Amino acid sequence: MNTFGRNFRITTFGESHGKALGAVIDGCPPGILLDETDIQALLDRRRPGRSPLSSPRQEADRVEILSGVFEGKTTGTPVAMIVRNQDTRSGDYEDLREVFRPGHADFTYQEKYGIRDHRGGGRSSGRETIGRVAAGALAMKLLAMHGIAVAGRIVSVHGKTEPAAIEAEILGTKNAGDSVGGIAEIVATGCPAGLGDPVFGKLDALIAGAMMGIGAVKGVEIGDGFAVAEKFGSVNNDLMTKDGFASNHAGGILGGISSGQDIIVRIAVKPTPSIAKTQQTRDINGKVVDISVGGRHDPCILPRIIPVAEAMLALVLADSLLEVRKYR
Amino acid sequence: MNTFGRNFRITTFGESHGKALGAVIDGCPPGILLDETDIQALLDRRRPGRSPLSSPRQEADRVEILSGVFEGKTTGTPVAMIVRNQDTRSGDYEDLREVFRPGHADFTYQEKYGIRDHRGGGRSSGRETIGRVAAGALAMKLLAMHGIAVAGRIVSVHGKTEPAAIEAEILGTKNAGDSVGGIAEIVATGCPAGLGDPVFGKLDALIAGAMMGIGAVKGVEIGDGFAVAEKFGSVNNDLMTKDGFASNHAGGILGGISSGQDIIVRIAVKPTPSIAKTQQTRDINGKVVDISVGGRHDPCILPRIIPVAEAMLALVLADSLLEVRKYR
Amino acid sequence: MNTFGRNFRITTFGESHGKALGAVIDGCPPGILLDETDIQALLDRRRPGRSPLSSPRQEADRVEILSGVFEGKTTGTPVAMIVRNQDTRSGDYEDLREVFRPGHADFTYQEKYGIRDHRGGGRSSGRETIGRVAAGALAMKLLAMHGIAVAGRIVSVHGKTEPAAIEAEILGTKNAGDSVGGIAEIVATGCPAGLGDPVFGKLDALIAGAMMGIGAVKGVEIGDGFAVAEKFGSVNNDLMTKDGFASNHAGGILGGISSGQDIIVRIAVKPTPSIAKTQQTRDINGKVVDISVGGRHDPCILPRIIPVAEAMLALVLADSLLEVRKYR
Amino acid sequence: MNTFGRNFRITTFGESHGKALGAVIDGCPPGILLDETDIQALLDRRRPGRSPLSSPRQEADRVEILSGVFEGKTTGTPVAMIVRNQDTRSGDYEDLREVFRPGHADFTYQEKYGIRDHRGGGRSSGRETIGRVAAGALAMKLLAMHGIAVAGRIVSVHGKTEPAAIEAEILGTKNAGDSVGGIAEIVATGCPAGLGDPVFGKLDALIAGAMMGIGAVKGVEIGDGFAVAEKFGSVNNDLMTKDGFASNHAGGILGGISSGQDIIVRIAVKPTPSIAKTQQTRDINGKVVDISVGGRHDPCILPRIIPVAEAMLALVLADSLLEVRKYR
Repeated sequence: MNTFGRNFRITTFGESHGKALGAVIDGCPPGILLDETDIQALLDRRRPGRSPLSSPRQEADRVEILSGVFEGKTTGTPVAMIVRNQDTRSGDYEDLREVFRPGHADFTYQEKYGIRDHRGGGRSSGRETIGRVAAGALAMKLLAMHGIAVAGRIVSVHGKTEPAAIEAEILGTKNAGDSVGGIAEIVATGCPAGLGDPVFGKLDALIAGAMMGIGAVKGVEIGDGFAVAEKFGSVNNDLMTKDGFASNHAGGILGGISSGQDIIVRIAVKPTPSIAKTQQTRDINGKVVDISVGGRHDPCILPRIIPVAEAMLALVLADSLLEVRKYR
Repeated sequence: MNTFGRNFRITTFGESHGKALGAVIDGCPPGILLDETDIQALLDRRRPGRSPLSSPRQEADRVEILSGVFEGKTTGTPVAMIVRNQDTRSGDYEDLREVFRPGHADFTYQEKYGIRDHRGGGRSSGRETIGRVAAGALAMKLLAMHGIAVAGRIVSVHGKTEPAAIEAEILGTKNAGDSVGGIAEIVATGCPAGLGDPVFGKLDALIAGAMMGIGAVKGVEIGDGFAVAEKFGSVNNDLMTKDGFASNHAGGILGGISSGQDIIVRIAVKPTPSIAKTQQTRDINGKVVDISVGGRHDPCILPRIIPVAEAMLALVLADSLLEVRKYR
Repeated sequence: MNTFGRNFRITTFGESHGKALGAVIDGCPPGILLDETDIQALLDRRRPGRSPLSSPRQEADRVEILSGVFEGKTTGTPVAMIVRNQDTRSGDYEDLREVFRPGHADFTYQEKYGIRDHRGGGRSSGRETIGRVAAGALAMKLLAMHGIAVAGRIVSVHGKTEPAAIEAEILGTKNAGDSVGGIAEIVATGCPAGLGDPVFGKLDALIAGAMMGIGAVKGVEIGDGFAVAEKFGSVNNDLMTKDGFASNHAGGILGGISSGQDIIVRIAVKPTPSIAKTQQTRDINGKVVDISVGGRHDPCILPRIIPVAEAMLALVLADSLLEVRKYR
Repeated sequence: MNTFGRNFRITTFGESHGKALGAVIDGCPPGILLDETDIQALLDRRRPGRSPLSSPRQEADRVEILSGVFEGKTTGTPVAMIVRNQDTRSGDYEDLREVFRPGHADFTYQEKYGIRDHRGGGRSSGRETIGRVAAGALAMKLLAMHGIAVAGRIVSVHGKTEPAAIEAEILGTKNAGDSVGGIAEIVATGCPAGLGDPVFGKLDALIAGAMMGIGAVKGVEIGDGFAVAEKFGSVNNDLMTKDGFASNHAGGILGGISSGQDIIVRIAVKPTPSIAKTQQTRDINGKVVDISVGGRHDPCILPRIIPVAEAMLALVLADSLLEVRKYR
């Protein structure tokens, strides 16, 4: 299923070593100023090759808008955007054609489809997020028109919270041929109360599904999240004051509907599966083999996952924003 | 949005103090043996009044099947089930008509809809889960035909893990007029590999959305969950052996698709908002008032949320199971 | 698939001889006055036993609203309505348990599901429209708030257009143990321009699907319909004037979007398959048998199909009306 | 809404004078041989400039597949296809920027979106069908694997049925600066019984919606269609024989489910709105003006609409074919 959203609907396509990746955005309101520069900035934040801390694959990832815009404004018709792959070194993956890389989706894709594009992970590759981020950039434009902003940050990497320690951790891990994970937090400010559609379109449910669906994410929490498990109700309840709330343990969502407070989401990101260290695995014929994944991989996905998480939160909020208009 | 699922689709309805609650299940395969006893067992696990640890509201919650069954088997047409409310003490809520109970959805429902059934929380009440559990019981029947089972358990309540300590914690909290939260774990066994539909119908994404959408849930994690944030890739990767996997840090899902291993999900449940302790809040006219929520409330939702979480996991798996049939 | 609509979503359930039939309406805006009398009037127009021209089955078809209403107004939560079957003479159908009645869905349901409730046609029965009509009545309330009305009429029965001739045709056919079909027209007045969502949610496409989905309908046309096949463009184009249009060959829809003119739809209804005249058919074992369908059947469905067609048009318009609010 | 289908889902994009048009197909089973030549043939049948009877606009309409294929086979991931516009003479439309062409969607698009790409009709142009036809070609491949074929033909143009008379009619009309409409028939052979999902996913309902959604279509009928309005039930019922059916008045669909017989659909196509003859209309400022639509237009759309109608029928059948697999 490659379509996300009910009103601001995105359909993404593309594989790591295919011709192009992209997205079609259907349901974007008409009259919004849009050109490639609006999208490029967020794409640039996710692409590889920009820092010694990430994959050295060189992709300009220049987006091209194919439809849905006329004289600089959206027309209300589908907006299609594509990004062509350039620096595909498919040869890097020839040895991996029949091997299931540990921690990756190789085995499960083979089980499910009976065929898989092994190059760079095919559609299971992180490059698939190009479509989501491009669409998310457009969602952010719509949100901005309503005073809503989303911003993500790294909370910790391998338990470290201080920036210099984080950088050292990542480089050290890279040199050791291993990888690390961490926690990111994404906050939406300026959301009006009333977004979200109980009982199955609750805002926190949509956000959880959006975040958990990002590759490498293994946990999602809202507000105080898992910490609520050790709190009393008298402490966890956000009391109401004359003007608003006295606290925000709920993370901006009550009963699945936004309360007007900041929406606070945290995600747990697993360490990158592709590591140089030798590991044992199985190949397509059931034979046990050793594997050391060379190639150009991120020792830690956190920095590049932030724009993806921002994009997904923006998409959920844009979708919910359009939904509530039906009742005003 | 009150419909969940793409193939095994459920639509629920009903409020805490309305005439009846229920669900319509559309897309259940034909030929499955079904009568009320199949559903009643799971409903009985969720209903109130069964233990001193939970709400004393007395509801038999007897389910009645209205359609979709002929001579004891499903026909492939929609199965409608209803449960009529009996022990509604709407008078208990008259004082709360215009007050926003802290931690509840009163304020957000008012903001969103401009009107709300304040009695017992209306549709935001935990009684709304009757429809989900009834439908989930039918999903479990379908899963059982494929050797798939789901089972939930309490991991901890307010940090306590030992059963006697948990019971003492809940009773003590109740006596103190307060409430506690905790963590539950739900495991699915017997799942084949291949369930889940990247990129937006990934199994873990669907599960996360299903769980976070249960009232009171503030966090969801799969497999090692948030613990992956402090692990190295060389440790977190589940290595493959000749016969399967050497470990299951992934919780049974890789790349959004089931791997054949047990699917392990954990949810963080917040302490019940309704407590006897006096708290400050606001009413519909903006006036600050004190509130002590009397009535019949659970000091801890964990025991009664387990069948709901099992039901939601069963619904996701049943839906995904039907999905993969399209490709075989 | 038993759910219709994207915003004003209805899910129907129920079979001819099951316990009850009904519908759940999800997405109805809050604040609308609603009680059973709003629904009963339209249901009364569709029920049998009201005239010598229709089936003599006696069903009061009293509707009961189970949820979604508080102090007389919709709350924005799902509205569930049920109608219990009373006058089911299942014995009438015992002989037909294994026989495929010509022109009915018996054979195709058996092929598709491998099991069927043969009594009264099960879910393929015209009684299934109870859910649609109940939901349609609620849609009509919403439309009325916007000055939109739908009204249907019989255009012809077996080629006859004059009321007395139509009545004579139906009675004569009934006495002959046969049945007749006809054409109905449904018009929506007061629709604003702008309803409909190209390219796959075009208003005429949604209407065509809604109408053709009514049992016994074999053709749908909009505006001049099939007559456009023999007209020149210079004649068929509706020229625009200072205040509107000079004609309405288009039937109120251009490019899939309403133009503000009356929306004109016509449907072709086949003669009732159940006739007393002896016909040849096959049974479930492949044996050729003669069949004379006794029981209580309409010699002509037209009169009772009008409220169903009105309901379906109302549902499409209500759904599209909510859709356009997203862009204002 | 630019997505069609529940299982074999297509999302189309593109305008007449934008950069490119295309489609993303999501849900196509893996393992199907696919390259551009499979798609090009059907696209070639729809493109302009191929005959003196159609528009002289010269577009090669070469399709490029961007994703979803690996070593010549579909992977089960989204297949994106694009066609770039080449022969756009936007200058031809400058005079029409503010004028509402009679019979076109100019007025309704302006009303709905408040902005429109006037060049060549923007998204309301017949070029939009490129995406549908490309996707339909892929659907036809899937159907062919199951022995199902769809084929369309012109039944009549302006009442003429004989080929030479039809050609003369079209040329004569073109010379007169006018246009004509007609009727087309599309037949699907080889369909198994059981396709279609009552009550709102009935096969005939899906087909009706698919056909009526093609620009210029004003009527759809199945089997004997509107002719059933003047037949007796004893004549219209398709009696069953030992091996099948004695007739096919139903057009292959009973109760919304395919019966195994040929599926017969007819559509009424209106005369092309764009004609050279002078007509009266209104401009965006409400001023009445005369208009003569020059440019390169088809005097009759029938020949080029056939592949579009075939594509839409193929899409419905492919979608329904995947649906029934869920129950086997």
